Formats: sequence, C-alpha cells, structure tokens
Amino acid sequence: MSYTAPLKDMLFVIEELADVASVSALPGFEDATLEIAQAVLDEAAKFNGEVLAPLNAEGDKHPSEWHDGKVTTTPGFKEAFRQYGEGGWQGVVHPADFGGQGLPKLIATPCIEMLNAANMSFALCPLLTDGAIEALLTAGSDELKQRYLPKLISGEWTGTMNLTEPQAGSDLALVRTRAEPQGDGTYKVFGTKIFITYGEHDMAENIVHLVLARTPGAPEGVKGISLFLVPKFLVDEDGSLGERNDVHCVSIEHKLGIKASPTAVLQYGDHGGATGYLIGEENRGVEYMFIMMNAARFAVGVQGIAVSDRAYQQAAAYAKDRVQSRPVDGSAKQSVAIIRHPDVRRMLSTMRALTEGARALAYVAAAHSDFAHHAADADTRAFHSAIYEYLVPIVKGWSTEMSIDVTSLGVQVHGGMGFIEETGAAQHLRDARILTIYEGTTAIQANDLIGRKTVRDGGAAARAILAQIDETLAALEQHDGAPFDAMHRRLTAGRAALASTVDFVLRKAKDDPNAVFAGGVAYLKLAGIVLSGWQMARALIVANARRADDPAFYGAKIATAHFFADHVLPQAVALEASIVSAKGDQGMFALAEDQF
Amino acid sequence: MSYTAPLKDMLFVIEELADVASVSALPGFEDATLEIAQAVLDEAAKFNGEVLAPLNAEGDKHPSEWHDGKVTTTPGFKEAFRQYGEGGWQGVVHPADFGGQGLPKLIATPCIEMLNAANMSFALCPLLTDGAIEALLTAGSDELKQRYLPKLISGEWTGTMNLTEPQAGSDLALVRTRAEPQGDGTYKVFGTKIFITYGEHDMAENIVHLVLARTPGAPEGVKGISLFLVPKFLVDEDGSLGERNDVHCVSIEHKLGIKASPTAVLQYGDHGGATGYLIGEENRGVEYMFIMMNAARFAVGVQGIAVSDRAYQQAAAYAKDRVQSRPVDGSAKQSVAIIRHPDVRRMLSTMRALTEGARALAYVAAAHSDFAHHAADADTRAFHSAIYEYLVPIVKGWSTEMSIDVTSLGVQVHGGMGFIEETGAAQHLRDARILTIYEGTTAIQANDLIGRKTVRDGGAAARAILAQIDETLAALEQHDGAPFDAMHRRLTAGRAALASTVDFVLRKAKDDPNAVFAGGVAYLKLAGIVLSGWQMARALIVANARRADDPAFYGAKIATAHFFADHVLPQAVALEASIVSAKGDQGMFALAEDQF
Repeated sequence: MSYTAPLKDMLFVIEELADVASVSALPGFEDATLEIAQAVLDEAAKFNGEVLAPLNAEGDKHPSEWHDGKVTTTPGFKEAFRQYGEGGWQGVVHPADFGGQGLPKLIATPCIEMLNAANMSFALCPLLTDGAIEALLTAGSDELKQRYLPKLISGEWTGTMNLTEPQAGSDLALVRTRAEPQGDGTYKVFGTKIFITYGEHDMAENIVHLVLARTPGAPEGVKGISLFLVPKFLVDEDGSLGERNDVHCVSIEHKLGIKASPTAVLQYGDHGGATGYLIGEENRGVEYMFIMMNAARFAVGVQGIAVSDRAYQQAAAYAKDRVQSRPVDGSAKQSVAIIRHPDVRRMLSTMRALTEGARALAYVAAAHSDFAHHAADADTRAFHSAIYEYLVPIVKGWSTEMSIDVTSLGVQVHGGMGFIEETGAAQHLRDARILTIYEGTTAIQANDLIGRKTVRDGGAAARAILAQIDETLAALEQHDGAPFDAMHRRLTAGRAALASTVDFVLRKAKDDPNAVFAGGVAYLKLAGIVLSGWQMARALIVANARRADDPAFYGAKIATAHFFADHVLPQAVALEASIVSAKGDQGMFALAEDQF
Repeated sequence: MSYTAPLKDMLFVIEELADVASVSALPGFEDATLEIAQAVLDEAAKFNGEVLAPLNAEGDKHPSEWHDGKVTTTPGFKEAFRQYGEGGWQGVVHPADFGGQGLPKLIATPCIEMLNAANMSFALCPLLTDGAIEALLTAGSDELKQRYLPKLISGEWTGTMNLTEPQAGSDLALVRTRAEPQGDGTYKVFGTKIFITYGEHDMAENIVHLVLARTPGAPEGVKGISLFLVPKFLVDEDGSLGERNDVHCVSIEHKLGIKASPTAVLQYGDHGGATGYLIGEENRGVEYMFIMMNAARFAVGVQGIAVSDRAYQQAAAYAKDRVQSRPVDGSAKQSVAIIRHPDVRRMLSTMRALTEGARALAYVAAAHSDFAHHAADADTRAFHSAIYEYLVPIVKGWSTEMSIDVTSLGVQVHGGMGFIEETGAAQHLRDARILTIYEGTTAIQANDLIGRKTVRDGGAAARAILAQIDETLAALEQHDGAPFDAMHRRLTAGRAALASTVDFVLRKAKDDPNAVFAGGVAYLKLAGIVLSGWQMARALIVANARRADDPAFYGAKIATAHFFADHVLPQAVALEASIVSAKGDQGMFALAEDQF
C-alpha cells in the first residue's frame, strides 16, 4: 500500500502537453524551467512517499477524535504537518513577498496530486489553507495580509472555508450567520456553520476561519453576504497569539471516508460573539468566496486524479502478485498472475487511461491559469483565462466522477480481498466518494459549465477549444497505424458530439432550461471524456515521435492512448444522444413529484 | 430509512411481463395464480417492512462479533430469523414433500427481492441456506435429504457454501481441503475455508456446511473435487443434535459492507477431523456446487435490484423533503424541494429506470426457470432452460454492476449528507459493493456468458432472444408518440449492437480468445442494457394500452420507459464499439506486465 509518484508521467505532461517552456517564458516565471520542475517534483515525491503515504491507512483506522471541544488528529499527522510546513510545501504557488516560492500552478499541480495520492485526508488541510490564502491575497487589506499570510504560507497556521449552514447546503442565499459591527472596525459574528473541513484540529497553533455572514440591513439573498476573517486565537499587533476567540467546535461528523480529516460543526458567538474582520467590502463575500472556490474546485479535481492513481498503483501491484486460474488463450498450463487475464487487464487499462487523461487535462488547465495571470498582454491573459475558466468545472466534475469508477475498479481487481478493509482498496473508494459532492456537486459544476462558461460568452471558449482539437485531428491524419486510426476516428466522433452539445446548450438554454440543465452532467462528462481524449491524442503524437528514445515508456503511452480511443471515447456519442436527441427531459419531467 | 415493497410494480411485472397466468398453467403450479402471488407478496411486504427493514441500519452499526470461536449476530437478528422460519419464508420455493410451499420461482423472486431490500446482511443467511437445499435436493441421498432438508426448509437450521481457500479464490482447481474415508461411509475433513458467509452464528441450532474437498487419490484440478455435508453439530438418527463437530470459526472479516453478515474463516479437523458425509458421487463436487452457485447467482442479481430499490426509495424521499435553491426554469421565486432540480430528477429517474429494467428481466428469467423445470414436454423445458441459463450471468452481472451506480447516485442525491454515515445512504453503496464480487465476479459471469452460454450452443439462445426482441420492435411500430419513437429507435440500435457482439464472440472465440474475453464484461453490460430495455419496451406497450385504468401508475411506466430509451439504451452502442471495432484487446495487450 505504498505510493510512488509517477514522476516520469508527470514530467511528460508538464514538458510535452502543458509546454512548461512557454510558461517559464512568462514574466516572473523565469526560474520555472523543466529542470526546476523536476527538482521540485523529486523532493515532493520523497516527502509524500516517505512521510505522508504511510499515514494514509492510519488515518482511516484512527480517525480524528472530538472530545470536549478539542479535536485530536490521527497519530503522526501533527508531526507530518510540521514537516510539511518546514519543507515549504504550503508556499509552492504563493508569492515570494509573503514567504512563498512563487512557482507556476503547472508545477504546483503535480505537487498537489502527490500530496493527495499520498494522503487525501491530510491534504485537505493544506487545500483549504490555500483557499484562504487566495481570498486574502485577492481581497484582504494590507494589514490582514501582513498579519495572516506569512503564517498561513509557512504552514504554522491553517485556514478554513465556512459556507455551509444546516439550512443552507449549496444555497448561499439561505445563509443566516450574522456579523454585527462594533464601531472599532471589528465585527461580532454569531451563527452555526457545518461541514467545516479541519474546522478544529491540533496540527497548528492557530486556525484562520473565513466565514460568510450577513451584516445588519444587508440585502436578502447572495448579494447581502460578506466575508469575514475569524481567527481561533486573536492575533496581537506584534503577531503573537492573544485570547481564544468565541468560535467552538461542538462536534465532528462520522463519515464514509476521509476519516482523518475532521469535518466540524462550528458554533460562533455563543459566549458574546466571535471577533471577526471584514475582508474586502461588505456584501461582496460571495464574489470573494468564489475565488477560493475556484482554486479549491481545481484542487478537488486533482484529488480525483490523485486517489485514482493511488488505487491504480495498488491494483496493478496486486494483479502482478496474485496467482489464480489458467489464461484463456492457453498460453500457460498452470495458474498465472491475474494481470494476464483479459478482464483484469481491461480494468487496469481503464484505470490507467482515465487517470492519465484527466491528469493531462488538469495540468494543461494549470498552464492556462499561469498564462491567465502572468502573460504580458491583456488579450493573451483574457484568452487563457476564458479557457481556464471553461476547464475548471470539467477538471473538478470529470476527474472526480471518474475517480469513483476508478477506485471501484480498484476494489474489483482485488476480488473478495477488495471488500476486506485491511486490504486498503476500499478506503480509496470511500475517500473518493466525497469528491463529487464537496466544493460543489457535479450538478453544480455542470450548471457553472452551462451558465457562466458556455452561455455567457456565447460558446466562445468552447469553440476555441474545438478549434484546437481540429489542429490535433489534422496532425493525427499525418500518421498511419491502428492507434492513430482508432484515435482519429473516435476523436472525430467525440469532437462532433461535443460541438453538437455546445450548440444545443446555446440554442436552448433560455427557452428550455430544464432540458439543458437535465443534460448538464452528461455535457460535463462528455466534455471530460473528449478533452481528456484530445490530450491522449496529443500524447500519442509525441510518444510516436520519441518512441526510439525510450521504447517501453513511449510504447506504453501509445498503447494507453489507443485504449482510451477504443474504450473511453465511444461513450461520448452515447452521452450526446442522452442530451441532444433526448432533449434531456421528456421522460424525466413527465412525472409528477408524487410519482417518484 | 424505511422500506415499502413496490408491490404494484412487482405485480405489474409478474402479470404483464412474466405472464404468471402461463406459469400457473404448468403442472404442479395450479395454485400459483396472480391472486396467490398477490397474497404471498402482501404478507412478505409486511414481514420485511416491519421486522427486517428496521434492523438494517442496526446491522451496520452493530456488526456480528466474534469472540472465542463464537459469533454473536446483531441484536434482534436471532428473533427475526425465528419469525422468518416460522412464517414459512425459507420454504417458499422448496418442495412440499420436505415442508416447503412449492411455489414458482416467479413468486419466490419478489419475496427474495423484498427480503434483500429490507436487510441484505440478514438475507444472506436464507440465501446460502437455499443453495444448500438445492444441492441436497439434486444430489443428496434419501437419508441425507430426510435428515437435513426439513430442518433447513423450516428455518431451524441454516446452510453454507464452502468453496474458497486462502490460495484459491475463484480457482477451484487449487482447492486443498481433504476428506479421508473412515470405512463406515463417513469421512474426516481437514482444511481451511475462508469467506464463508454465515459460517458461524447464533441464529439457528445447527449449521449445515457444504464443503468442497479432495479424497485421497482424486484427480488433480476441478475433476477431483467432491462435495461433503459437514454439520456443526452431528445429527443423531432420531434427528436430535449430537456432539459438536470439529469445524471451528477462527475469525470473521472486517468488511466494507454487509457488516451484520459474518464472513467466517472455518478450520476443519484441527482436533482429529470433522465428520463429513459425501453428497452424490465422488469427484462430482464442482458439478453439484454449480447447482448451488447458479441459484445463488440469480439470487445475488436480485440482491442488486433490491439494494437499488432501497437506495432509490431513500433518495426519492429525501429529494421531496430537502428544500434548496430556486428552480432553473424560474417557476418559483423561492427555494424548492430538490426533486424539482433537473439533475436530481435525472439521478432519480436513472435509479428508477435501471432498477425497474433489471427487475423485469430477473422476473422474466424466473418464469423461464419455472418453465424449464415444470413444462410438460421436454422440448419446451429445454428451450426455456437455455434461455434461463443465458440470462443467469446477465441477471447476476448486470443487476449488480448497475446497483453500484444506483447506490452511488443515492449518495449523490443526498449531497453532503450522503457522506455522513448516520444518513444511511452510504450503507447501501457499501453493501452493494460486494455484489459484483461474490458468487463469481462480473468477469466470471462474463466468461460464463461467452463460453457456456453463447459459444457452446453456437449462439442459439442469444438468437432466440433476439427474435423475441424483433417481435417487440414490430409491436412498437404500431404506435405513435415520443416514447414509442424513442424506444423503437434506441432498441433497434441496441438490438443491432447485441447481435453484432454475439456474432463477434462466435466468430472470434477460438482464434482470438483474448480479444473476446477482454470484451466480456462489455458484452455482459450491453446484454443487460438491451434486454432490460426490451422489457421496458414491453412495459411501455402494456402501460399504453391500460393507461386509462390508472393514469398515474401507467403514466409513470411510460415515462420511465421513455427515460430508459433516451438515457440508458444509447450506451449499448458505445459498448459494442468497445468490443467489436476495438477488437477488444489491442491497446490492452500491447503492454508488458511491467509496464503497468
């Protein structure tokens, strides 16, 4: 149950598909070369493989425990988090001004993948802290930045996102937590927040809660919500910790997975009010929260890739080791390792192809983010920003949906042993099962993909991507052989399915929203499959050209792309049928509620 | 978290799709009319809903416990099992000669569905007992039958199947347990068996283990395995319990789901040998075991349907109750129950359509089994037997594969609450996850479908079914309207995909077994989708004709069939592509083992 970071695969994507050379040509990223990427990834692989991976099963066996308002994390987590901070891992992507390394997202993303593959429950603490850092960087006052960012970026303190309340799951309009101005620039915060990841724990000296709340007289709905910083311990002007703030953890949840990650119910203001500091302007809280959310959504997509790879590694190791039954092709008279059985190989190939495809898409998206923030001219930034924004719900939604299938296949490869908890395969499925839910369910990602990412720009971003796929298709035509033929045929069909779906969404979104939104998740999955397949096609072309350099490695890339074309891409056409020909909704909305 | 048996849906299938009238016209089933079916199902619904359903979550919270060789089941299970036996439920399908009710499988199947929907962990004990009864009926001597069957059928004793050993999962050739003849007709059994469901428990006075073992000098491989009856307590000639036999439970497993069902490691013969009795003839054990297995495989398929329906009921109830966010079509200004959101409706419709489709196929298969055993003439029996045998791996494989998706959607409908164990949605997913593994993994079902069920008869059974689909397609053509148009179009494509896959399997099985077996699971899923869709098409025609009788009920049947056509059937074409155009294996077998 060890984890070995797939460094070669990661660097292949960074170099060949996400073009790290062009990222390191951006202003401010001059140091971010392939060599630096390699050095950073090597170190990350060591730390995550040696320190965090062995604690993953521990976290499942010994979840975080709540007692009398305090949360004790899994034995070993506290020390590991100290090492994580000291190693500078919290700061990889954050500005050097506040102690970070200021590296591109393209290099930070594989680090996040490794962290999550090694230990997803642990990784949630840095993930949420990243979100708090992003929000402070974007909207915090200089004073708040100076006081909080260095400690967050160094990993001495951690951050949280406080959105959900008992009556308001994803529906922020229903937020009731209130913040009363005290006349001295501070506020007193009152309310209950639920599902707060690492809302209380013993791994850091202080916890910086970012909290959505309403000020008195604020407008109803999402336009009357502000964002507050509420520290667990107040911070004095010299940066030292002051008195305990009035925010308390009243319980943690008993969950299907990610058991080491404490999911807290936080009570604000039961003893007079929790002191909070406004971030940015009043009533713009949801806007700021979306900055955190967008970063977090991308990261959750990477979690899906990470847990998939971990499950794949474990299943592949088992399949090479477990001996059972003779091969169907009669190539051996005795029982053989189960990896020689066609269905086991199909399962492993599926796990691998889905994971590699989603990884390539996520890293390519990360490079777009780097261009969106660092390119010299505004048009280039706007173009890449639009592409990145289009890809975020797909990276989040597709990478997590496929991770449930991949981790479930991981159980299946193990047969009966997969159902026994000691084997460890089931943990990955249980852990993965949250990924399509938190930071916005897949349906919420699909709504975002339809509304803000497809309809709002009239399909411009989608069509820009389709045009890039056409370039890849033209390049595929220059080659012969079964992998190229299969890929060209299936990617052509997939591209057509995606284009027709985008047209359908644009044509119908206003007049028949139910039909369009009923097909939203299918659109998201279709886009995930086609865009991952497109990356596999690009990988195929590169691997073919470089095959002689490393026949085993590039041969595997070719075979995996071929498998993706044959076994994954055909699903795109079925999804299109389910959206476009079905008009999404007819059988579905014919029923009254009480007929369900 | 209650369970209400879908009696109306069940009776619709029994009457209209599985034609109970024709079953009750078979010799020996004269009493098995629709009215009797209704009466039996009513009683079953009461017992399962009132007694067993409330114990389902209890079993998850308080699993069976092992201590010092003894297993204590979940509080309430022992008393419930007593009621189960006294109610005659163990005997529904078994012969009246030994105390059973002798009802058709068509009527027993919905009872099994209810039992498993109410409490899958509990239901495993009767399920395994059924298997033991079947094997004894088929191959046991009169003495063994007289001594054991009445107590098993009355539910006073329970039965087990002992196949698996640590080194031999699904590979029975590796079985090492040995049985030494004692000269008095009995044997002494020695060995270790693992994964024995209800191998030890406190719910019955005695446990009747059916055990695969080798006699001295038996041939190697599966042709040298015999089947033995090894009771936990020896049974005296007068039927009273004698001394404790030398079979002991040394541990039980810590599992992902079905936690109340004890999965035992059994040690035979550590204290001189466990007394066993040969069932049937030596070296024919695997053949007899397949009788049990076939019955058990069908029942496991029904488990998939059952847990899917339970998950659907829970998700639908939650979706009607949970209020969140405004509808996308602007039909309300305030937040609404989430069932009004298109994606929630899509998820519920998917759960419902898959469950209804799989149920219809399973009940229709049960009716074929009744004809196979009870039809007056041999040709009719042979025809129905071939159809039933073809359907068994599909009912097992497809109903269980889809149950993982359905129960996972059940979690998703609940959003964040679905990940909290107290909600109960996650239990269904954890429970369902074993179903594609035990009694033969989906790959093993697919191998059976290819080898014994398609290739061996040259595709005769498959083509007989395709001809029946053609009749349904012709009937669909007589109707107009969107549901009929959609169903005709998609079922035509699905039928073609199935036919082309069957041709591919027949053409290639010998020359290119890797290609064929690599596509085996896809073939099985394709068949599951198309044959379920075919049943939905038949339901559509009936519901349309009877719509005026009960517009809400039949309207829902029409809408569900329409949904199935639009959203499920299109996957058949993608699966065909993955088998036939891909030749299954190219990308997959290009890799050496160490490239994984």
